[in-house]
Amino acid sequence: MATNQEDVKLLGALASPFVCRVQLALNLKGIQYEFLPEKLPNKSELLLKYNPVYKKVPVFVHNEKPISESLVILEYIDETWKQSPILPSDPYKRALARFWTKFIDDKIVVPSFKSVFTIDEKERDKNMEESSEALKVLENELKDKFFGGEEIGFVDIAAVAIAFWIPLIQEISGLQLFTAEKFPKLYKWNQEFLNHQIVKKSLPPREPLFALFKGRYESLFNASK
Amino acid sequence: MATNQEDVKLLGALASPFVCRVQLALNLKGIQYEFLPEKLPNKSELLLKYNPVYKKVPVFVHNEKPISESLVILEYIDETWKQSPILPSDPYKRALARFWTKFIDDKIVVPSFKSVFTIDEKERDKNMEESSEALKVLENELKDKFFGGEEIGFVDIAAVAIAFWIPLIQEISGLQLFTAEKFPKLYKWNQEFLNHQIVKKSLPPREPLFALFKGRYESLFNASK
Repeated sequence: MATNQEDVKLLGALASPFVCRVQLALNLKGIQYEFLPEKLPNKSELLLKYNPVYKKVPVFVHNEKPISESLVILEYIDETWKQSPILPSDPYKRALARFWTKFIDDKIVVPSFKSVFTIDEKERDKNMEESSEALKVLENELKDKFFGGEEIGFVDIAAVAIAFWIPLIQEISGLQLFTAEKFPKLYKWNQEFLNHQIVKKSLPPREPLFALFKGRYESLFNASK
Repeated sequence: MATNQEDVKLLGALASPFVCRVQLALNLKGIQYEFLPEKLPNKSELLLKYNPVYKKVPVFVHNEKPISESLVILEYIDETWKQSPILPSDPYKRALARFWTKFIDDKIVVPSFKSVFTIDEKERDKNMEESSEALKVLENELKDKFFGGEEIGFVDIAAVAIAFWIPLIQEISGLQLFTAEKFPKLYKWNQEFLNHQIVKKSLPPREPLFALFKGRYESLFNASK
């Protein structure tokens, strides 16, 4: 359980949707934390110490105890600070929420990024198709204002990558990954989500992020010329 | 919560370590269930109905409510039937257990199978090296008799793929994936684990499984000649 004497740190990078998930959860619960920005590719000693296995952000550090993997961190936060629950209390609904977050990562986030950051056309088409089919499946799952019902929950937090990052890399690449025409319900969810006060507060500034990913995208294509 | 009137089904296939995880959890908790064998590649209507997204086993069905993904199922079982807990009660230890199960899947199980079931030498070497490095990391994490301490827990259950499946595909392929010399602590764990009464009861018979994987292995290599 959380005590009054908390030491809460987040090793992160603003460009990462996985880091943003943790920030969202902390902000939704009103937990104060210290953000320690990693300047990749130079990894800090703290990052190497706290995540020797993957050497990746996010790393969440609570009273000197480090945790890696964004979805694992979200569960820890929800179990440790009980206010504004992220996961439903019913075991079956919890199972579904866990199922959909894994689905979002494996079938939407990874293939979307792969479709943009490749110079191989076949690879691009295959990944776009996979992501598009998965977005259709997710669209059909959306029954309420949010995946969590009237409030933002575990699946919505995981889906921040769809709401904010995918439209951004879509704009850079010109690929039609996630449009209002193809996914009207998800698009509406997207608007509601991005207009949520805590979400607004948790997102990184768009312009430098756009410039960063555009730079990566262009250097990939220039290198291949 | 579990009631007296339970309808517990598992759609599975004996060749799958992911199905075996669910059987192990159910047997450790002493939960009666009906096993519905899938005969792949012909998928039953029940499988298509209950897991339309992935169309894969295992699917766990509790009172007509289906759940997919072995690790998601394990958490559901642990939350629904409280006897013989699988996950620790402390949130930090729970987080570590979740971290290591994901690590086992991503870094050991998937690369090990990829290293055996490929005809591409580079692919084989790359995956063998990844799996070997990850086994070293896991070896260093093993502090007690089991990953769960004195009793079998979440990580041990996930690691059934290492204990039973990897030695089997190792024997078929002749690759040195998991040996007592390279991983003495893990190997000792392996012996303890396989000698556990409930584990013995939960594993599929070795011979038909060996024949099945040997057949797959040989047809892969014969097709490439």
